[in-house]
Amino acid sequence: MIGVGIIGYGYWGPNLVRNFYETPDCRVVSVSDLRENQLARVRSRYPTVETTTDFREILRDPRVDAVAIATPVSTHFDLGMQALRADKHVLVEKPMTLDVEQALRLVDEAHRRRLTLAVDHTFVFTSAVRKIRELALAGDLGDVYYYDSVRVNLGLFQHDVNVIWDLAVHDLAIMDYVLPAQPVAVAASGMGHVPGEPENMAYVTLHFDARVMAHVHVNWLAPVKVRRTLIGGSRKMIVYDDLEPSEKIKVYDKGITVNGDGNGNGNGNGARYAMLVNYRTGDVWSPQLDITTEALTVELRHFVECIRENKTPINDGQAGLRVVRLLEAATESMRNAGRPVELAGNRCPV
Amino acid sequence: MIGVGIIGYGYWGPNLVRNFYETPDCRVVSVSDLRENQLARVRSRYPTVETTTDFREILRDPRVDAVAIATPVSTHFDLGMQALRADKHVLVEKPMTLDVEQALRLVDEAHRRRLTLAVDHTFVFTSAVRKIRELALAGDLGDVYYYDSVRVNLGLFQHDVNVIWDLAVHDLAIMDYVLPAQPVAVAASGMGHVPGEPENMAYVTLHFDARVMAHVHVNWLAPVKVRRTLIGGSRKMIVYDDLEPSEKIKVYDKGITVNGDGNGNGNGNGARYAMLVNYRTGDVWSPQLDITTEALTVELRHFVECIRENKTPINDGQAGLRVVRLLEAATESMRNAGRPVELAGNRCPV
Amino acid sequence: MIGVGIIGYGYWGPNLVRNFYETPDCRVVSVSDLRENQLARVRSRYPTVETTTDFREILRDPRVDAVAIATPVSTHFDLGMQALRADKHVLVEKPMTLDVEQALRLVDEAHRRRLTLAVDHTFVFTSAVRKIRELALAGDLGDVYYYDSVRVNLGLFQHDVNVIWDLAVHDLAIMDYVLPAQPVAVAASGMGHVPGEPENMAYVTLHFDARVMAHVHVNWLAPVKVRRTLIGGSRKMIVYDDLEPSEKIKVYDKGITVNGDGNGNGNGNGARYAMLVNYRTGDVWSPQLDITTEALTVELRHFVECIRENKTPINDGQAGLRVVRLLEAATESMRNAGRPVELAGNRCPV
Amino acid sequence: MIGVGIIGYGYWGPNLVRNFYETPDCRVVSVSDLRENQLARVRSRYPTVETTTDFREILRDPRVDAVAIATPVSTHFDLGMQALRADKHVLVEKPMTLDVEQALRLVDEAHRRRLTLAVDHTFVFTSAVRKIRELALAGDLGDVYYYDSVRVNLGLFQHDVNVIWDLAVHDLAIMDYVLPAQPVAVAASGMGHVPGEPENMAYVTLHFDARVMAHVHVNWLAPVKVRRTLIGGSRKMIVYDDLEPSEKIKVYDKGITVNGDGNGNGNGNGARYAMLVNYRTGDVWSPQLDITTEALTVELRHFVECIRENKTPINDGQAGLRVVRLLEAATESMRNAGRPVELAGNRCPV
Repeated sequence: MIGVGIIGYGYWGPNLVRNFYETPDCRVVSVSDLRENQLARVRSRYPTVETTTDFREILRDPRVDAVAIATPVSTHFDLGMQALRADKHVLVEKPMTLDVEQALRLVDEAHRRRLTLAVDHTFVFTSAVRKIRELALAGDLGDVYYYDSVRVNLGLFQHDVNVIWDLAVHDLAIMDYVLPAQPVAVAASGMGHVPGEPENMAYVTLHFDARVMAHVHVNWLAPVKVRRTLIGGSRKMIVYDDLEPSEKIKVYDKGITVNGDGNGNGNGNGARYAMLVNYRTGDVWSPQLDITTEALTVELRHFVECIRENKTPINDGQAGLRVVRLLEAATESMRNAGRPVELAGNRCPV
Repeated sequence: MIGVGIIGYGYWGPNLVRNFYETPDCRVVSVSDLRENQLARVRSRYPTVETTTDFREILRDPRVDAVAIATPVSTHFDLGMQALRADKHVLVEKPMTLDVEQALRLVDEAHRRRLTLAVDHTFVFTSAVRKIRELALAGDLGDVYYYDSVRVNLGLFQHDVNVIWDLAVHDLAIMDYVLPAQPVAVAASGMGHVPGEPENMAYVTLHFDARVMAHVHVNWLAPVKVRRTLIGGSRKMIVYDDLEPSEKIKVYDKGITVNGDGNGNGNGNGARYAMLVNYRTGDVWSPQLDITTEALTVELRHFVECIRENKTPINDGQAGLRVVRLLEAATESMRNAGRPVELAGNRCPV
Repeated sequence: MIGVGIIGYGYWGPNLVRNFYETPDCRVVSVSDLRENQLARVRSRYPTVETTTDFREILRDPRVDAVAIATPVSTHFDLGMQALRADKHVLVEKPMTLDVEQALRLVDEAHRRRLTLAVDHTFVFTSAVRKIRELALAGDLGDVYYYDSVRVNLGLFQHDVNVIWDLAVHDLAIMDYVLPAQPVAVAASGMGHVPGEPENMAYVTLHFDARVMAHVHVNWLAPVKVRRTLIGGSRKMIVYDDLEPSEKIKVYDKGITVNGDGNGNGNGNGARYAMLVNYRTGDVWSPQLDITTEALTVELRHFVECIRENKTPINDGQAGLRVVRLLEAATESMRNAGRPVELAGNRCPV
Repeated sequence: MIGVGIIGYGYWGPNLVRNFYETPDCRVVSVSDLRENQLARVRSRYPTVETTTDFREILRDPRVDAVAIATPVSTHFDLGMQALRADKHVLVEKPMTLDVEQALRLVDEAHRRRLTLAVDHTFVFTSAVRKIRELALAGDLGDVYYYDSVRVNLGLFQHDVNVIWDLAVHDLAIMDYVLPAQPVAVAASGMGHVPGEPENMAYVTLHFDARVMAHVHVNWLAPVKVRRTLIGGSRKMIVYDDLEPSEKIKVYDKGITVNGDGNGNGNGNGARYAMLVNYRTGDVWSPQLDITTEALTVELRHFVECIRENKTPINDGQAGLRVVRLLEAATESMRNAGRPVELAGNRCPV
């Protein structure tokens, strides 16, 4: 039985408590929040769960094996580090930290203490994203050519982070999970329309070593809600629309074929002999997805299982770090008018 | 009666001939194409129209007042210049030329000879785009915050120009028509998936002096066809979906309001006092559009009228030049890994 | 303060309890259900609410002024009658009773005792349906020509009532609320695909005295979920799609105009002079709806207000009776191969 | 080489001429129409085709082997009969005739003269409908449970036939082609909103011997255009949306399974033991369709091939007769307030 404490009972905390509450081999020991009225809600719904306004009580509690942190991002590092130092396993909200430096230190601390550190990249536990990864890994898509996501709607404007940290973080976490390679450079452009507030719209471009590119459009000030990803591959292409109630993924047996002879001639005879591109169109297939099980349910079971069996979560601190590195680089690029920022560590040594 | 000659009877030429044929005060004199079999089609459908494989016959013909050029873009400058020097008014396919230098010379030549030079930016003659301009000019949108367009589909891969010149040209022409300001910098990232061929996908970002940005996603290798533009304003926002059969434009009475007190406090007391952003949602309105009249019909009438009345077309050579300048800069940026390219001439002198 | 008891804590009961719990001037006194485990849920979520497996305790309780009945339809009459006889106001789930006879007796009992009897026609409290009624009453639609609804999906097959009683009941309640006239005849055709079980698909046609007709397609065995109503009027037409997240109602300024002269000539000169029908197309308008307030919240406030101020609810027993009359007639017609059943009482005496 | 004459060059005639013109082994000899200006169009587009205002010239012409009739439905019988008597094969527009009597006589005449009689049920030559038939025949759907079609839009009001003859004729022809059984009764309800004109909206229900039903909603006065068919089967279900540009057909691996034990118990123990219905949900599949070849092209090739090889067309006079029988019965039912009309001839003799 894994004892769990939850720090933060605001927007996301209630989902964590509700799901941990129903996770097998797991017991919610205590919840902390600075607001007493929020804690009253916990007690009324979960009479067996203790509450406190002092998160340190949770860290001191020997019945607590793992801590989930659902507080503003600026507090993630400090709370996470204290929890690790109290020898608690940690699940922290995304984005994991405010910068790479903090993320590295958390990863390092967890590693040294052999504790499980996970970041709540919820989307990688949805059946849709898992299916996409499955198709990509199985080679059904062929070579992946691009990943393009639009994630826009009206609201909620954040004050402490820009729209990239708030929305693109989802796409970066999904890409980190489904794409075989790591980006080597990031560029971003964005704009804020409320003076003194963070950017509320942004375009992020990711460059890879291979012939792959990725792009994310995020916007808090859009007239309609869109959650739509296009993934192009040499063999098949995917449309992933998270707002579709049931057919979230469509796999298109579509693409181009290039005439090899045209290629040869083209090399020999100059520009007049262009490649012959043919278009291929086949069936469209929408695989059945388990849309009844909440992603967070799957994620928390995985977290508990990883603690119990001493396994590395798919959403471990390294994943959190990789995503924070991209967020940091994107913001840096955005502050420099879109100038690309290289991710030295990601470049493959040749 | 304006006599018209059409040079090039390939993909678009038949549309020009068909529409000029039915334009009042206008007579199609002659059509040229290098392919005799194409000319046979002209003669069978339009027995009164003459044909020739030598476009110079058209330029020499005193019955021809105006020439329409619908040939590959690499020939636009040369044919356009010859036509102007033969004292013909000119309508040239988009993009107007291969580069800014050529465009400047055409504009200059037409200006010196007081001839009408127009570029076939067909979209600015659609009822949808005209309605958007009307709403923008009337102030219904408030301050325009952004223009975001997605124009993707499978095919047709071009060999002589990249996807920006083929598809984004439409968006740039529309923006040139509906937005009040000119961009001051352009950045673009793209990729080609057929070796030796032009880029088949690209993202173009336009920066403006004011708090406005624009972005275009174009792609020849997408699983689905999308023609969707979001325009955000401080008062209203527009979704323009060109694939909708009838409701192509939706105007959303939606947006944010910012609490002025929050603003004042924020200035005085630092970051702790964030702006209070409220969300405003009202009706959605889809204005009736005349979708029965072909845009090209409207355009050619406008062209003939401008010649007859010595007026400047809304799609004049200057518009063609501005769009070519953006295309050139976007391609330059794309070749430099997305590094923004400044458009010195567009920067407002302060 | 109105004291409320809820009988039945199955599928819908929890919604009633939750909403009554937050209704002003109202107190949930007690909940009854035959299943002790269901009652345990009540106690854990609402520690102040009493529970019992014997609904008669609720009826005997002097603190209870009103009773909500959310049990299988076969028990509605008996429970409703007992509640009325215990001098409780009653809100009963839809459909109100199993037949007209029962409905009449409930209405009569409530009338004699001057008690409020309401039936839970939730849809008439949605902002979408209220907006439709508003438009119809204000004359915006002109003469209403037809009401056409499709309400299909896969599941849930009911065992005690056919699909008309389960799904069409919603449409009949909405029509009763928004249409100015009462149907004079009903026809229905349907079919069951599970031997021994009720019909799982049906088509119901309602005839009116005026030039109006209504039609409802309901189906538990459809591949997709559809909740779509078309309402045709002489001036405007409405599409009401309840699955749209925000633009649930679209008002089309569309229709026909008929040439009066054609009419005159036609009368004088026989069939050769047909009416000249012209088509009219204008803007589409999607009025803002309050989609954040739950319909049941509005309904329960209305119920409590009607009790307190001794007013007649818009969803009173008469409305419940009218709907049950249509359900009964539709089922009778369906059992007779679609033969229309007249609703004598609805025919206007002339 | 089959010589073809076309009678009637109004709305549909030009499509017939254009397609016959490009059909192999076929030559368009002559076109007749009462309007000289229409014939002038023929001559300008097809200089080799002769024209006449007297259709009898076509019937007398020995170069003409087959005649296509694209005139108002009231003339179909007379023109068709004259053509057959002139020993011409006949393709007649749908609906084939004004009533069953006429249809029977045409079929009989063609049979006696061993001539090919076909009716232009264009939809059965679309790749979508052919794919549906293929799936139905192959047993992929299991037992077909229902066929439900909605075919509504604004306009075009007809003066000589009601909306059933104009729109539902398509659905009846499709059903005749894809469903394994023939209906045994028809009911219809409808209404006209222009005084003195035919019904502009109608609901048609078809009953079959087996546990199958079909329903068609047709309407000339609808705010939106809908062309959507649901086909329910015991194994799979189909949504056929003809307005979808590419994915016109979606096959849902969805349905119910019924617990056999529940059945047994139910029989033995009365109503308390209801059937256990489980819901099954699997992939959705959208088969690739050839949407580039016009259905009429396929149809005319089939017509010419049937003449040459003396085969029976799939759209033969019998098919035309079966559809007219349904149209006649539906109109009869509609005139009788929806009273079902039995189709005696269709009842299987047992």
